[in-house]
Amino acid sequence: MKPELKVFKIGGGIIDHESDLQGFLLLFSQVAGPKILVHGGGKGASEMMKNLGIAPKMVNGRRITDAITLDLVTMFYAGKTNKQIVAGLQRHGINALGISGADGNVIQAVTRPVREIDYGFVGDLSEASVNAELIHQFITLGLTPVFCPINHDGHGQLLNTNADTIAASVAKAMSRKYAVTLHFCFEKRGVLSDVNDENSVIPRISLADYAELKESGIITAGMLPKLDNAFDALQFGVDKVVVEHALHINDELKTMLCLN
Amino acid sequence: MKPELKVFKIGGGIIDHESDLQGFLLLFSQVAGPKILVHGGGKGASEMMKNLGIAPKMVNGRRITDAITLDLVTMFYAGKTNKQIVAGLQRHGINALGISGADGNVIQAVTRPVREIDYGFVGDLSEASVNAELIHQFITLGLTPVFCPINHDGHGQLLNTNADTIAASVAKAMSRKYAVTLHFCFEKRGVLSDVNDENSVIPRISLADYAELKESGIITAGMLPKLDNAFDALQFGVDKVVVEHALHINDELKTMLCLN
Repeated sequence: MKPELKVFKIGGGIIDHESDLQGFLLLFSQVAGPKILVHGGGKGASEMMKNLGIAPKMVNGRRITDAITLDLVTMFYAGKTNKQIVAGLQRHGINALGISGADGNVIQAVTRPVREIDYGFVGDLSEASVNAELIHQFITLGLTPVFCPINHDGHGQLLNTNADTIAASVAKAMSRKYAVTLHFCFEKRGVLSDVNDENSVIPRISLADYAELKESGIITAGMLPKLDNAFDALQFGVDKVVVEHALHINDELKTMLCLN
Repeated sequence: MKPELKVFKIGGGIIDHESDLQGFLLLFSQVAGPKILVHGGGKGASEMMKNLGIAPKMVNGRRITDAITLDLVTMFYAGKTNKQIVAGLQRHGINALGISGADGNVIQAVTRPVREIDYGFVGDLSEASVNAELIHQFITLGLTPVFCPINHDGHGQLLNTNADTIAASVAKAMSRKYAVTLHFCFEKRGVLSDVNDENSVIPRISLADYAELKESGIITAGMLPKLDNAFDALQFGVDKVVVEHALHINDELKTMLCLN
């Protein structure tokens, strides 16, 4: 039987509120067994750009990662946020190791191909981009890897990447050696059947349910990429995927995703 | 016989010039055997403060690391600079692992005690602060650790620290397992006998020579902390200390420091 591994992902909504972030780190530090944390960005980089008088570069309503934006997200995500999380976990006795994909070459992304839009320094990645062996070695050393959403292309270029995709790709890659549970943590108790009712958490969604929920428009647009990632992870080896509130990871109320 | 290990330290003077930094990274990538890189800061954080209209906090002419300064140095040193160096080394086939002292708890510093001046979030460290065993494990995995000058206190607080001290402390701690050569790289060919003559490199300085050179005022004030660190390292187990130009590490012209 494979040993268990828990992969948690938190996003900007938690990171932007210091007390929420600290609350999550305390709960995360109490999770038993080997674990990995993947964190997203937050508003820091955008606010810094505003304070510096730099307008975000937009093309067709999409935000572009130009050179200055890449510098700022690298500073915030790989610098301030990642190191604050690592120091916060060390405080709770968790031997966290903060890494970007460039560190140990654990994730090698590719620059997103230019089709209608040139997204700039944005990286795409898949399960095959992840060096599961080295991550396994870190875990074997008693370390808890903490990934920021900055990767590299192997040719010296850093790339901004989506944290949900990193979490799903890492979870899939690690499922070769571990029975992986992937936890998408955010500011809701799970997937809601009524976006205005916080208590309308759908406890269990199968792949067939998901198709119906999409069809009927019950699942809102913002949740779709997250759930697409989640079901993809289940189809490629991940044992369980949970969608839950970052400050209530020990509660029963949450959404379990499953294939059947 | 202990295996060899080379610890290189580069400072802001190299980091602030992109082409110099890339030149150094190429040379460093060609250095044979296990190695470690420690990098300092650079002007980025100060320039960003100026652009944001924030005046650096000074007390008695000394610069203080207040909360906003700590945020900015963490962003630059642990984020932008560290990840650019790591991605740059990966490009040359070196499996670099960028770390702060908080990562893996490899260095645990203490906040500098308040005497005449409260330096703020500044950390002091010694050989005993360094987790040589984990650094050894990283090297055994084929990784090249790249230290930024940000550490933590183990209680959740990040601390700004002097990169020369990190390099010397890491070199001393690693000398229990390795025959360590410590390379202080900067923008001169070595220790100069005439600060205005770039070719006046003193090829060899013993501890007795150093006392004389200090006495006679030949060694300038800026070099003293570096050389004090260097001789301290030699006295506590480090095999060799070299002071050399970051872009000429393969040249003969350099200063070797030795006890006798």
